[in-house]
Amino acid sequence: MNNRPILGITMGDPSGIGPEIILKALFEKQVYDDSKPVIIGDHKVINKALKLLNNDSFSINVVGNVDACLFEYGTIDVFHLELVDMEKFTIGEVSSMSGNAAFQCVKTAIELALQNKIDATITAPLNKESLNLAGFKYSGHTEIYAELTKTSDYSMMLAEGNLKVVHVSTHVSLRQACDLVKRERVLAVIELAYNACRDLGIKSPKIAVAGLNPHAGENGLFGTEEINEIMPAISDAKAKGLDASGPYPPDTIFPKAVGGFYDIVVAMYHDQGHIPLKVLGFQYDQEKQNWKAVNGINVTLGLPIIRSSVDHGTAFEIAWKQIANQSSMLQAIDYGIKLAKIRIARSQNED
Amino acid sequence: MNNRPILGITMGDPSGIGPEIILKALFEKQVYDDSKPVIIGDHKVINKALKLLNNDSFSINVVGNVDACLFEYGTIDVFHLELVDMEKFTIGEVSSMSGNAAFQCVKTAIELALQNKIDATITAPLNKESLNLAGFKYSGHTEIYAELTKTSDYSMMLAEGNLKVVHVSTHVSLRQACDLVKRERVLAVIELAYNACRDLGIKSPKIAVAGLNPHAGENGLFGTEEINEIMPAISDAKAKGLDASGPYPPDTIFPKAVGGFYDIVVAMYHDQGHIPLKVLGFQYDQEKQNWKAVNGINVTLGLPIIRSSVDHGTAFEIAWKQIANQSSMLQAIDYGIKLAKIRIARSQNED
Repeated sequence: MNNRPILGITMGDPSGIGPEIILKALFEKQVYDDSKPVIIGDHKVINKALKLLNNDSFSINVVGNVDACLFEYGTIDVFHLELVDMEKFTIGEVSSMSGNAAFQCVKTAIELALQNKIDATITAPLNKESLNLAGFKYSGHTEIYAELTKTSDYSMMLAEGNLKVVHVSTHVSLRQACDLVKRERVLAVIELAYNACRDLGIKSPKIAVAGLNPHAGENGLFGTEEINEIMPAISDAKAKGLDASGPYPPDTIFPKAVGGFYDIVVAMYHDQGHIPLKVLGFQYDQEKQNWKAVNGINVTLGLPIIRSSVDHGTAFEIAWKQIANQSSMLQAIDYGIKLAKIRIARSQNED
Repeated sequence: MNNRPILGITMGDPSGIGPEIILKALFEKQVYDDSKPVIIGDHKVINKALKLLNNDSFSINVVGNVDACLFEYGTIDVFHLELVDMEKFTIGEVSSMSGNAAFQCVKTAIELALQNKIDATITAPLNKESLNLAGFKYSGHTEIYAELTKTSDYSMMLAEGNLKVVHVSTHVSLRQACDLVKRERVLAVIELAYNACRDLGIKSPKIAVAGLNPHAGENGLFGTEEINEIMPAISDAKAKGLDASGPYPPDTIFPKAVGGFYDIVVAMYHDQGHIPLKVLGFQYDQEKQNWKAVNGINVTLGLPIIRSSVDHGTAFEIAWKQIANQSSMLQAIDYGIKLAKIRIARSQNED
């Protein structure tokens, strides 16, 4: 119990499912056995969510600094930021107030982590439209984290079960994604993938690199990026001693990694990595016309701090209806704990 | 039993797993209960495969025309083509003799189907390198079928469980795939998807159209193909009375379709459709370092004849070792039977 890492969990967009899934996760005793969680958000919103969930066994402890947290099961510590005017608060809608609130929570979480007040940051979903409406022009969390931590070489890792995927590019058009498949960038992402595995305790990470084109270009027949960019990057990685191989046909490498043959896959673009992850992690309930599972997590690689996140959005259509599923939030917390423990152990060994 | 459709099953590349998986499928009584299968291939190769599998309950009936087939469980009817010199025959290797044999079987199957001697064609895998070495410059079965049946508007459908996917393009580079996302072609593929569902007995097909870019372009932020090409194509389809919708974010539309919300998904490029199918259908056995399941089938849409196929390759590395898995072949046979029965019933109604 002594080496429980402190997790700063951002509230996310308050108009979405964030507050509900965080509380549902914190109702799990195991989370407190393994970590010291504190919500970074507005206590009025968290209080409203607690009332919605109608759970009398839990009370809220409002704090202004991390030292004042109790970290006890049964008490929800909230690092309070005065952000939401409850009279103007709307559920399931784009709003600049909610967008601003989501941003400020993330900003504070990053600051606390940079100051070593917390060991890891866990993020609930934000809504990009609301974020932009509030004047913050980011594509999402990843870009906020990169800018506020002054990180240039970063990448998005998704994970679900056996499958971990790191992306060469994310929020750009598919045409631009093709342009971004460059030897230097592919090598940088292979190295990020290697470090991510090491940070998760894998001693000799086995890295699969996907091709860009169908059948990995079939020897130049369907595109030349494999020959001109990806193969040289793999050679560079091997020269640095990394166990990287490929480029593999993008359609068969994912089931092979799911089967355990590789520790991580380097994907060349957003959907190449997102499609297999979501096919594995998301389950749609046709009868209820709703997602019955939204598993999978999102870790930003290359940062000086830890960021682990749910792998789904704000789900406005089901927000504040008591039906949101906390499984991805629990997985994000698990990943944050695992990454924080290894980082803490490593820094202690260095002392 | 009277309306069992006649299936012409091509031997595939004899150096690969085709002969073995066909025989394993024909060892299933159910196949004969539901259909009249005949292998189109070289009887010497089939005989060798039968010896390999060491199954005394089966004998081979060599025929030169379909009328001579027995179609009885226990007898393997082979429509013989003299193609393979067994002295020169090699296993698990690229060879022009095997490439030629694979091609000639397909050509004969197409001719028999066009002559209405068989009701459906089922194809075992061929090796493109061998095919090309034999002088046949095709990307695969799909292109052979299109040319020999003089079909211009065609598409590859993959199916596994609840998920059916039709592709706007297949064997081209990802950059070229972006160029091929054009209103007319997208509309044509939506119509092919509709007809495929109808051919499978779905009365009112619900068609989901995926975007090309991440998040379906996010209102033009990451690419404009959704706005300029895909949305107009969906409007055109709706104007024709089809239940088509989208464009949807490519990463979440597949799990939603798997959950049963749509009958079919129109994918914008090869891997967008192939990745979710193979993640669902393929299972890798880490211990044996081999695929333990390769489910999924491939149907060519738009042809005047029926073509259903396995969704995997020749698997040279495990060929003729008695370990190849026939599950995809059995699924391909099932699809061929279903498509043939509906087509036969429809033509009888028209009489």
